[in-house]
Amino acid sequence: MIEFEPIGTVRSPFTRRDQTPIQPYRSSARGRVELLPEYAAGLKDLDGFSHVILVYFLHGSDPGFDLEVTPFLVAARKGLFATRYPRRPNAIELSVVRLVRCEGCVLHVDGIDVLDGTPLLDLKPYVPAFDAFPEATPGWLAGRT
Amino acid sequence: MIEFEPIGTVRSPFTRRDQTPIQPYRSSARGRVELLPEYAAGLKDLDGFSHVILVYFLHGSDPGFDLEVTPFLVAARKGLFATRYPRRPNAIELSVVRLVRCEGCVLHVDGIDVLDGTPLLDLKPYVPAFDAFPEATPGWLAGRT
Repeated sequence: MIEFEPIGTVRSPFTRRDQTPIQPYRSSARGRVELLPEYAAGLKDLDGFSHVILVYFLHGSDPGFDLEVTPFLVAARKGLFATRYPRRPNAIELSVVRLVRCEGCVLHVDGIDVLDGTPLLDLKPYVPAFDAFPEATPGWLAGRT
Repeated sequence: MIEFEPIGTVRSPFTRRDQTPIQPYRSSARGRVELLPEYAAGLKDLDGFSHVILVYFLHGSDPGFDLEVTPFLVAARKGLFATRYPRRPNAIELSVVRLVRCEGCVLHVDGIDVLDGTPLLDLKPYVPAFDAFPEATPGWLAGRT
């Protein structure tokens, strides 16, 4: 068993699951990442990055999971780990959002796609050399994103 | 408190921390993701994706964290959340690796950068539309990756 404590909360305009965009790249919504005040010093130097990775707990998902699911973008059953479906053995998701500005322990971000009140587990700088593979082949999602 | 159970184990040639590459894009090492057998059915349809995201627990990191750290790529103190430094409040990291092939509950991957025995928390398809932002500004890492 691995135990984590949230380091903050993500605030968004979305209070119901049926309001959230499928992925942040489809969202132009503004949101706030409210880090717990004791972590504020860890935000130093983050403002030079245009994008950040939010790692969070999908607290709004129903518990449990199925190993085959019908995802949002296709009317067919797919293996769970070939999808970003939210009901997973460990309900962790990540979103890349645009960093607008840092203000104390609050990050203002654009392109948020998570439920209001989402527990934040980690916050990382998005580094194209580490994280951007535009040539990657998107499997069954080809032509659907 | 949020509790997770590993869904599998990552096998790599790296048995000591000082052997691991800084990031997978600097690695050409072959590795294996061994999913627990009960999750094998969830791998269906993953083989069409060229890259996958491994979400894992940094089990080899010393416990605890500092809010300012001296990361690997620069001789200067940086805010922890402006780095991918492994000692974090929640020791979660993600790596994008190339998927070579699926074989039962095992994924053969290229470009692995994690310690052998790393507990896997989640496995996701890498989708360029969701995950690739090659134009992102890499802050203090500019010119260093």
